[in-house]
Amino acid sequence: MTKVCAVIMAGGVGTRFWPRSREKSPKQLLEVLGKGTMVQNTLKRLEGIVAPHDTFVVTNRIQRGALLKQVPSVPEENILDEPVGRNTAPCIGLAALHARRIAPDAVMVVLPADHVITDLAEFHRVLAVAIETAAESGSLLTIGIHPTRPETGYGYIQSLTDEGAHNPYVGRGVMRVKAFAEKPNLQTAERFLGSGDFLWNSGTFIWGVDVILRQIETCLPEMHGEMMKVDAAIGTQQYQSTLEKAYGVIRGISIDYGVMEKSDNVFVIKGDFGWSDLGSWDEVYLQSGKDSSGNSITGTVIQIETRDSYIYSPGKLVAAIGVEDLIVVNTDDALLICRKGRSQEVKEVSDYLKRKQMNEYL
Amino acid sequence: MTKVCAVIMAGGVGTRFWPRSREKSPKQLLEVLGKGTMVQNTLKRLEGIVAPHDTFVVTNRIQRGALLKQVPSVPEENILDEPVGRNTAPCIGLAALHARRIAPDAVMVVLPADHVITDLAEFHRVLAVAIETAAESGSLLTIGIHPTRPETGYGYIQSLTDEGAHNPYVGRGVMRVKAFAEKPNLQTAERFLGSGDFLWNSGTFIWGVDVILRQIETCLPEMHGEMMKVDAAIGTQQYQSTLEKAYGVIRGISIDYGVMEKSDNVFVIKGDFGWSDLGSWDEVYLQSGKDSSGNSITGTVIQIETRDSYIYSPGKLVAAIGVEDLIVVNTDDALLICRKGRSQEVKEVSDYLKRKQMNEYL
Repeated sequence: MTKVCAVIMAGGVGTRFWPRSREKSPKQLLEVLGKGTMVQNTLKRLEGIVAPHDTFVVTNRIQRGALLKQVPSVPEENILDEPVGRNTAPCIGLAALHARRIAPDAVMVVLPADHVITDLAEFHRVLAVAIETAAESGSLLTIGIHPTRPETGYGYIQSLTDEGAHNPYVGRGVMRVKAFAEKPNLQTAERFLGSGDFLWNSGTFIWGVDVILRQIETCLPEMHGEMMKVDAAIGTQQYQSTLEKAYGVIRGISIDYGVMEKSDNVFVIKGDFGWSDLGSWDEVYLQSGKDSSGNSITGTVIQIETRDSYIYSPGKLVAAIGVEDLIVVNTDDALLICRKGRSQEVKEVSDYLKRKQMNEYL
Repeated sequence: MTKVCAVIMAGGVGTRFWPRSREKSPKQLLEVLGKGTMVQNTLKRLEGIVAPHDTFVVTNRIQRGALLKQVPSVPEENILDEPVGRNTAPCIGLAALHARRIAPDAVMVVLPADHVITDLAEFHRVLAVAIETAAESGSLLTIGIHPTRPETGYGYIQSLTDEGAHNPYVGRGVMRVKAFAEKPNLQTAERFLGSGDFLWNSGTFIWGVDVILRQIETCLPEMHGEMMKVDAAIGTQQYQSTLEKAYGVIRGISIDYGVMEKSDNVFVIKGDFGWSDLGSWDEVYLQSGKDSSGNSITGTVIQIETRDSYIYSPGKLVAAIGVEDLIVVNTDDALLICRKGRSQEVKEVSDYLKRKQMNEYL
């Protein structure tokens, strides 16, 4: 049976979730939807597929303390700190080095820590097929999400749909990737949606530990060189300083751009399991349970003719009168009031706070 | 020269100003508009007309402490506590008893503590005419506000406009009152506005101290009987207990309904001096200074396409994105979000809190 390990990428900042997400308490460490924090739910979602002691969580020093408390079943040595965020390629490379120490021939499942999946059984079915295919083929696999709207906030993956007998895995719903596409404008997104062969890029990957390390060597040789120095330092007193030196040199690059788009051995499997990246407060509202007035409420809210709104205020009484289509997020030290449909602009608030050096709010 | 004293009625609760106004910090004790609390501004408005030591402030035990600090120029013995609120007639009667001890032949100006007046010179002119007329005529005078819209939130006063030589004060702009009208519906309010002889009832009165006490004796004999017991106890150790007994018996009634409407010696003088009773957050927004986006802001508010809104949050950072026509009042323990034009419904929030016995928010 194939040995499987997992890498949960949990170092993000999540500026679109201000004022709840902060440097010390980013989205993945919050209870955003229902019970459990997002990273806890990501770990839980792997139950029956990957054991916690075969799971790595990549984070940073600021978040490490909170993370250790949230996932006590993951061994402390599996919580990996990056000295600085350098996008997904170094993050995955670093985790692969550590995973190789446990099992060089394992298949590695890479997942963002801050996504939501509602149909767990279907997720497990798709993941099992992907793991089996990755083990058999030595290919790079990604999960592409069945698109339901012309979303401009996601990257897309175009699959090759007419391969026939040239693709031995087509019977499992595994297709070769034709191309990756950046976040499109609305017109392009509508064309993608109509074409039938474009899927949303979920940022979830499945591949052999050795396979991805060889691919990084091929596609990103400089980064690989730095990574080899880190590898040699694992378990020594020089680990931390070597890691910092490496990350000081390494160029930030995504695994999509750095490896996936350059490799000719990339497959995609379609997932249709109630996925969302919860990329904004609007998306959280969409995914939330609502009362009969269409409101999603956390905290004590006195509602007078209030409709279709998201109100989060666990610590303070709210009275809402005649409110419609509003997102309200009330934390201990800040209050967001945002017209529904405009929560992408929350990022501008973070930008403003950075510009004004209002660091206590970041 | 006529001796003048003043009575500032400051015992109200101001439930329409929730969450800022509470039992311990009602509207009149707050800085609602510009500098100074409303009661401080009411006192200041009398400068040059009535001295602080001739001014009485009627309040209650809960608010007394805060009030003493806010109006240090008023002698402590002039701050009168009512054991319980019984509307304006007992409040005015009690103040008149105390005023009579200072000067029985004085003219007494009675003012609510929570109104705003922007044209001070015109207010002084009107008040001087009213004081002179009250002193000469022994009549009851009230100030009627020149109406500028068909307001349904105010009572109205109809003046007799065709008296001619039967009214010796008509040359001063003082008219006999024909009738008092309760808060009208919109249709009636529009008729009032069109008629030209209806004015807004400002709740401001001018009369001789002895005159109003005799009128109370005539119109409200039971109340007067109780008041005489209180009068006899002033300056004795029995004052407090006598007052409490009296207020336990006295029926709550307004001076308008209890005296003004029953008397045939009532005059009104028109005031046009930028008056507002600041009866709601909508009214506060209207009276506030605005920025170029039409927003009235207190506190640090990051605005992204936010218009025509009132945002009060002195203690907590707010980010507003795409917000329009909203009233936001953020205090230490509660948050109000109200569609503009609906702030009269804030009273329903207070009613709800009472019903649910959420007393800490009252």
